[in-house]
Amino acid sequence: MVRPVYFVLLVLVAMSFAKYIPKTGKRVPQTLSRGWGDQLIWAQTYEEALYWSRSRNKPLMVLFHLVDCPHSQAFKKVFSDNNELQKILDEDFIVLNLVYETTDKHLSPDGQYVPRIIFVDPSMTVRADITGPYSNRMYAYEPNDMKLLVANMQKAKKLLKSEL
Amino acid sequence: MVRPVYFVLLVLVAMSFAKYIPKTGKRVPQTLSRGWGDQLIWAQTYEEALYWSRSRNKPLMVLFHLVDCPHSQAFKKVFSDNNELQKILDEDFIVLNLVYETTDKHLSPDGQYVPRIIFVDPSMTVRADITGPYSNRMYAYEPNDMKLLVANMQKAKKLLKSEL
Repeated sequence: MVRPVYFVLLVLVAMSFAKYIPKTGKRVPQTLSRGWGDQLIWAQTYEEALYWSRSRNKPLMVLFHLVDCPHSQAFKKVFSDNNELQKILDEDFIVLNLVYETTDKHLSPDGQYVPRIIFVDPSMTVRADITGPYSNRMYAYEPNDMKLLVANMQKAKKLLKSEL
Repeated sequence: MVRPVYFVLLVLVAMSFAKYIPKTGKRVPQTLSRGWGDQLIWAQTYEEALYWSRSRNKPLMVLFHLVDCPHSQAFKKVFSDNNELQKILDEDFIVLNLVYETTDKHLSPDGQYVPRIIFVDPSMTVRADITGPYSNRMYAYEPNDMKLLVANMQKAKKLLKSEL
């Protein structure tokens, strides 16, 4: 007759140590990379990214995307699998990926669409001159455009002269 | 004599499938929760959080902290272990944790310090009236203040009337 009591106690003790689990089931923790490069150190916000860019004198890549967008997904696959690109980003860039537009209009020179890549110089100048291959969406890239993207990254690495 | 060639080929093939690993060694992917509740769905930016808050008519909790701050760490431990608090946050709140200050001064009514918790109503009004127990840092909480924090969350759940 004692055992059921012990069992209930054991369950209660176990429950008190258990972490919170949502009614809908356990979730996979969200990553800041969102699959665009788990080994990169991603800034969380545009303000943070600008601060890192200025203080480390590295150009910033801002990547706008949507989790449910098939174009973003296809591009993400080649982007995260491209070791050359990931290495350059890790060593020479500040990176930020956003699923929500900022209030800064300079980050959408020709409109808000995804996927869209904007480079920003450490002098906080948006590099509107660094564009992809499409004239109607100048900052869009597709999976076949990785060579151009890497070339554009090399261009972004040649920093603008600071006007101090 | 053929085997070494196969071996080299095998290594090359394996390398082409290998993901990028930084020189300093493999990193643990960063999470958006930063340890404050892996089961919660965290907004990435203040703009995103405000949008979710308005559209879902849920109050927003903004949590400022620093990864290297011992006060933040101690508070994070009790915060993430408190299932009652985690459940209320998950079901009734929009949550955002930031390691970098925003440009919005309303989020630092009495200065920038960590850890600091600011509630925002879905009407986008900062609830400066919901304060912790310390008069010199009105939005600070310590590990022993969890009861007050849960009470403050209940207060934040009573939404302000929209002025439409």
